[in-house]
Amino acid sequence: MSAEVEEMLKHFHSMKNVAGIVVIDNDGIPIKSTLEHTLSVHYAATMQTLLEKARQVVLDLDATNELSFLRMRTLYHEIMLCPKADYFIVVIQNPSE
Amino acid sequence: MSAEVEEMLKHFHSMKNVAGIVVIDNDGIPIKSTLEHTLSVHYAATMQTLLEKARQVVLDLDATNELSFLRMRTLYHEIMLCPKADYFIVVIQNPSE
Repeated sequence: MSAEVEEMLKHFHSMKNVAGIVVIDNDGIPIKSTLEHTLSVHYAATMQTLLEKARQVVLDLDATNELSFLRMRTLYHEIMLCPKADYFIVVIQNPSE
Repeated sequence: MSAEVEEMLKHFHSMKNVAGIVVIDNDGIPIKSTLEHTLSVHYAATMQTLLEKARQVVLDLDATNELSFLRMRTLYHEIMLCPKADYFIVVIQNPSE
């Protein structure tokens, strides 16, 4: 998993306006992060509950369907959730000027 | 509200590959829909719980922030949630070829 995670981190780092990246395992523990610890833990906990809800809603509408990506736009930034089998990646992106 | 909803519907209808649009009030009732009734009610109920969760998560991370848009990619289609003050709009879009 580690090499794959490193590849993903490199990929997301190369994106424009990325303010932070957190890689979170399926227990909700941040295993890699460019944010400081407290914020990483906060993102991990909140984003895990959101990811669970989104997955459940997609399954609820069609039991053969599956969530592959989620993006939220907020007043201050965009938050992307990229679910993988054993972990998921949160990317926080500042709006482009 | 009605004229604004009609404008939004026209706007989303003009987008490519749109498979369905449901306008849902804050009580979770579908007030306009291009889908058949049962499916509209199902989308309304599930998407309202997801929207609530997403709004709560955004507020939880920063009490001055606010969700403005949510998009999910799934195996079969994309689902967009566009929250307004008194209602929200769900747009289901087929992937572009």
